[in-house]
Amino acid sequence: MAAAPAVPLLINLGGSLLGFVATLALIPAFKDHFLAARLFGEDLNKASRRPVPEAQGVISGAVFLIILFCFIPVPFLRCFVEEQCAAFPHDEFVELIGSLLAICCMIFLGFADDVLNLRWRHKLLLPTMASLPLLMVYFTNFGNTTIVVPKPFRLLLGMHLDLGDYRDDHIFSLYFMIPFFFTTLGLFYHNWYPSRVFVGDTFCYFAGMTFAVVGILGHFSKTMLLFFIPQLLNFLYSLPQLFHVIPCPRHRLPRLNPSTGKLEMSYSKFKTKSLSALGTNILKAVKILHIVDVRSGTDEDGEYTECNNMTLINFVIKLIGPTHERNLTLLLLLIQVLGSMIAFSIRYQLVRLFYDV
Amino acid sequence: MAAAPAVPLLINLGGSLLGFVATLALIPAFKDHFLAARLFGEDLNKASRRPVPEAQGVISGAVFLIILFCFIPVPFLRCFVEEQCAAFPHDEFVELIGSLLAICCMIFLGFADDVLNLRWRHKLLLPTMASLPLLMVYFTNFGNTTIVVPKPFRLLLGMHLDLGDYRDDHIFSLYFMIPFFFTTLGLFYHNWYPSRVFVGDTFCYFAGMTFAVVGILGHFSKTMLLFFIPQLLNFLYSLPQLFHVIPCPRHRLPRLNPSTGKLEMSYSKFKTKSLSALGTNILKAVKILHIVDVRSGTDEDGEYTECNNMTLINFVIKLIGPTHERNLTLLLLLIQVLGSMIAFSIRYQLVRLFYDV
Repeated sequence: MAAAPAVPLLINLGGSLLGFVATLALIPAFKDHFLAARLFGEDLNKASRRPVPEAQGVISGAVFLIILFCFIPVPFLRCFVEEQCAAFPHDEFVELIGSLLAICCMIFLGFADDVLNLRWRHKLLLPTMASLPLLMVYFTNFGNTTIVVPKPFRLLLGMHLDLGDYRDDHIFSLYFMIPFFFTTLGLFYHNWYPSRVFVGDTFCYFAGMTFAVVGILGHFSKTMLLFFIPQLLNFLYSLPQLFHVIPCPRHRLPRLNPSTGKLEMSYSKFKTKSLSALGTNILKAVKILHIVDVRSGTDEDGEYTECNNMTLINFVIKLIGPTHERNLTLLLLLIQVLGSMIAFSIRYQLVRLFYDV
Repeated sequence: MAAAPAVPLLINLGGSLLGFVATLALIPAFKDHFLAARLFGEDLNKASRRPVPEAQGVISGAVFLIILFCFIPVPFLRCFVEEQCAAFPHDEFVELIGSLLAICCMIFLGFADDVLNLRWRHKLLLPTMASLPLLMVYFTNFGNTTIVVPKPFRLLLGMHLDLGDYRDDHIFSLYFMIPFFFTTLGLFYHNWYPSRVFVGDTFCYFAGMTFAVVGILGHFSKTMLLFFIPQLLNFLYSLPQLFHVIPCPRHRLPRLNPSTGKLEMSYSKFKTKSLSALGTNILKAVKILHIVDVRSGTDEDGEYTECNNMTLINFVIKLIGPTHERNLTLLLLLIQVLGSMIAFSIRYQLVRLFYDV
């Protein structure tokens, strides 16, 4: 694919721009279909509770698939038209098809989850299944890039040589990331404050698998993890509630104060006695460290304790105080940008401490 | 794949039997999920109008995908374990992955159609997109099986030689048809009279693409069409209504007569004057040929004409008279079996008239 990657990339960009326009237009056009199918939710952070169409990631995902289905032949045109290939590169072709299979399967599962509200065991089983084709492609294409060197060259090259030809990996990633960026941009436009649509589980599944595909087949899965620093921090902070050591309510997003119009931390409230020894100790520790707001008191049912729900969003409100939703959204995006800058500096600067690059 | 196809086929069969049990168990287990998502319909041919879960093809389809995702490495195990391959057969691998991509995409679209009630233009556009990867696989793997013969052999073999190595095609088809048969059998059990579930658009899309995949990549697309003789007759018989030359109501299935408990023909009723000249002539012709029941009369709105809805099912009732649904179902299945027998005899007997086989 390295011969003239500029042309396929430009075609990909053109398709992605069309996809952006399509996503932008299709999301409002399908609004009534989603409302009729009862795929909608309420915006808990608004005073007025209008129904907001949900699972709209299925539209950006379908447009993404259409762009890439049309794009499939493009990187291989030179093999058809100009006969510049010694043999058709089936291994590159299967990478593209296998990635699309994993992503398509994941959009399907996400949509099924949005419609049918699957149980946790299905949510764990099915994505594992969906990633099997991807792993198989990885295994066959990269599992063994080492070749045995023919005898006459052994003095020069040694017994084995790792071909490890990674030069096209970033181009492969771009083939997926450019359409992903533009279709998501179309979705983002409608999801921007105040949200006219929700992205649904569909988008989360779809985005997760797309990142996994480019990270794994592009050979930068470790670098990719660095871009998830905010999500990792959120996960670590959430652990006591995820494992139900601290009681975890269904919704943990901040709470709207209708009188100020600002978002405040939401709290988990429970009887002090109901907490396990481990839970009590964890609460003591996070209170001393000032990373969770813990309050105690007595009401009609006896002694109670409450602490803010352990999410990064609540933590930000804890730091800066009650905030308007629009500003909070911007701040969280800034945190993501900051996280990505740290990721880049780790990848391209700190790595010099350990390796010659 | 021809080395020891018996082992992969046995593994495929084992997985398919597990899939049969899974489909059988999962369909009733998911009933409440589907009712909660309002994915249900009424059985128009029953006196009691209980809600019947719809779109259950998504369950047999998902089980089918899981079976085949787990099966992907099996035909290639010899390449990993025993190193019997000169090089990894990426072309065979991409056939499997590409077929799964087309089928997975189609199940997703079918389910989206069941949930969102897509318009006709989407119903036509999206399956076309879903078949692009399949066409690309076909084109790269079979588009050019002709090689130029090296000079020393030209006297013996001629200038060009078509390799056309089709020996593994039927094994490839079986890899898909065995799990399709068993997952569909599980669905059929629950869909059998009186239906406790409906299969939905999902199953029709899924089944259609699965047949297309094995027909196209197995190189027997023309033979496969022969097995659709009843569907083809139904299509031809339906043409006047499909093109709206004769008015076409939303539902054309037979009508239950509650007093006898039997199904009778359903009719399309319209003002005689509203019919076009073409429509009038077609009605005259089919009336003379006795293939459609046409009646005329006068009611409060003036002269009207009515004719039975032009489907194979109504035609069967026209031939044999009002019938109980259970018997009608059996009769239609018999017609399909008869059609398949005719297909086999055309393929393996009549062909002798034209070719030496």
